[in-house]
Amino acid sequence: MIYLDNAASTPVHEKVIEEMLPYFREQYGNPSSIHRHGRLANIAIQNARKRIAELINANSNEILITSGGTESNNTAIYGIASQSKGRHIITSSIEHDAILEPCKRLERDGYRITFLPVDKYGFVNLEDLKKEISDDTCLITIMYANNEVGTIQPIKEISKIAREKNVVFHTDAVQAVGKIPIDVKELGVDLLSISSHKINGPKGIGALYVKKGVKISPLMLGGGQERGLRSGTENVASIAGFGMACKLANDDMSENAIHCKKLTTKLTSRVLAEIPFTTLNGHPDMRIPNNTHFTFLGVSGEDLIIKLDENKISASTGSACSVKIQKASHVLKAMGFSHEQVTGSLRLTVGITNTEKEIDETVEVLKKVVQELRSVSPYKSKYNF
Amino acid sequence: MIYLDNAASTPVHEKVIEEMLPYFREQYGNPSSIHRHGRLANIAIQNARKRIAELINANSNEILITSGGTESNNTAIYGIASQSKGRHIITSSIEHDAILEPCKRLERDGYRITFLPVDKYGFVNLEDLKKEISDDTCLITIMYANNEVGTIQPIKEISKIAREKNVVFHTDAVQAVGKIPIDVKELGVDLLSISSHKINGPKGIGALYVKKGVKISPLMLGGGQERGLRSGTENVASIAGFGMACKLANDDMSENAIHCKKLTTKLTSRVLAEIPFTTLNGHPDMRIPNNTHFTFLGVSGEDLIIKLDENKISASTGSACSVKIQKASHVLKAMGFSHEQVTGSLRLTVGITNTEKEIDETVEVLKKVVQELRSVSPYKSKYNF
Repeated sequence: MIYLDNAASTPVHEKVIEEMLPYFREQYGNPSSIHRHGRLANIAIQNARKRIAELINANSNEILITSGGTESNNTAIYGIASQSKGRHIITSSIEHDAILEPCKRLERDGYRITFLPVDKYGFVNLEDLKKEISDDTCLITIMYANNEVGTIQPIKEISKIAREKNVVFHTDAVQAVGKIPIDVKELGVDLLSISSHKINGPKGIGALYVKKGVKISPLMLGGGQERGLRSGTENVASIAGFGMACKLANDDMSENAIHCKKLTTKLTSRVLAEIPFTTLNGHPDMRIPNNTHFTFLGVSGEDLIIKLDENKISASTGSACSVKIQKASHVLKAMGFSHEQVTGSLRLTVGITNTEKEIDETVEVLKKVVQELRSVSPYKSKYNF
Repeated sequence: MIYLDNAASTPVHEKVIEEMLPYFREQYGNPSSIHRHGRLANIAIQNARKRIAELINANSNEILITSGGTESNNTAIYGIASQSKGRHIITSSIEHDAILEPCKRLERDGYRITFLPVDKYGFVNLEDLKKEISDDTCLITIMYANNEVGTIQPIKEISKIAREKNVVFHTDAVQAVGKIPIDVKELGVDLLSISSHKINGPKGIGALYVKKGVKISPLMLGGGQERGLRSGTENVASIAGFGMACKLANDDMSENAIHCKKLTTKLTSRVLAEIPFTTLNGHPDMRIPNNTHFTFLGVSGEDLIIKLDENKISASTGSACSVKIQKASHVLKAMGFSHEQVTGSLRLTVGITNTEKEIDETVEVLKKVVQELRSVSPYKSKYNF
């Protein structure tokens, strides 16, 4: 099996598993308990919070632990909207559904939402952004790196614009954290979402960076954990594992980035050289190192995934996070892709466990299955495949 | 170390850990992915959902998986309130904060909330309940078993009343599920909250039973997982572990209940016989088998916990879920306890890993430390300790 869907989820690092096990077996106390079992659990959370904070150069008390990227995004959006006077939010048209859907719900509740367009690479235009900000704007939320095509937005510049206009700025950095250096102090963002399972940590855990002084209201109420911002018994083992995943991502970032870039560079150059009528989508350079995203003209991406799966290769058309409904990518449509281009797209995302040998095998399989599919394609005569 | 705080959290069963490990190491796919890695993850969720459902005699498609009891409770309350015409909710005065706090927020938003009183055992009065129901009542939420004193409410009768009046009925069954037989079909409840870490499963995972036909709106939006009711990549490993914890709790329920009851009966009879000026709180019979809750007059429960902790015994004054702020128990106050009685209370909750020997050791330590504390108590002369 070759796993090339690391943007959807990643294997949990063996050191992360090791870190979690004691919290299942021996240190199973409730962190809110005042006895020894509780105190040990509480210390584990403090240590993990420090590691999470260090990965993005935040302070520990700016890290709000959540059940994952979706909860982080929902908390950021509702947490700001529900207590702001302004009723206008600016986002982009290529966000993850965990941003778009909460925004659309607010739209139904009477908020005004601006979905900024993007160019062919997936970049928002900073002049567009400036023009849209009004006195009523309470939040700008624009993703760090796109989950489908990997394009990295000019977050520092967006943050600067938001700060000048005194608007809270959130970025969904789920695909970027751990892959490229992120320094929240240097960026000046107010809120930033992180997910554990995208960086070889366990699923079901994540964080929202909340800059000191930024006030948000909680999604859930109860025992008052996380300084009242996220009630519920803390998921100690997963938090400890997430902390270790952050530490490993931090320690090994350059090494991992070099490894991933080497694999994606090889994959890209071989695919473009050896399979005709194929393009790389997103920006050639301003992209996260582990992402490749191609369009194979005349081919259905879904058929391609099934064929790859038959050949023991796991790949994706784009977001894995829209269940069941295999709808056409809103990201590619926003980037101006034709229906044919959207349909023929394939995302291959590498991770720390992939090898060069796997990439070479994948290219060979891809050449074979693309040819097979093109031989029966309705576009066959158009391109003379 | 003797752990007698199983109502706060429990050690994870070794078979639960075994069940989880493959989903960290090999089957780490995103369940929404259509390739093999994704399909295997999806099958794991289906199997676990079946096991969770079986524990309460629900259908699999009535199980909504959440990040824990707090999220289940918040989803039930906001999920019904936000889409009902009625603006009145009935609850009890001894609920967990994960019920009380969402209700209080709705109260600030203009809802009318009735907090039903309880008697000295912690029971709500069914006539009181009937009287409070009005045409405006959209939800009744009353806990199954109290987390402090273990009192089991007449849920079937409450459910019948709610049904007759056509009001949605939710019960927070976090302390009862897995401890006593629960059959949602026989009970006729609409919504029921479950937590994994109270039944030797991992923390950070739980479920809300949603009876077929009952419509709720989601807390979080995004990729549309859990049939649109709970977005976010599914926490596959924890879900699988939770499923196993439910299966074990189901298979071993009588055995576990007999074991726990034996321990709590011994603990109760020895404590009441050997330590004067001591009472058992809650109802003598209508209580979950693993709970004991005492008042030692003239003693501070918190001092007692510290002394027990020094003697390597983990205990609690009541809820572990109210962090930091050691406020006086709202449960005991509602049961009509005096300040002195509230202050002198201690909860000892057993679990499947506790032994008779531990109970005997605990009684010996308790005798010693209660005497020590009473010898310096301000109430010393009152009772002539």
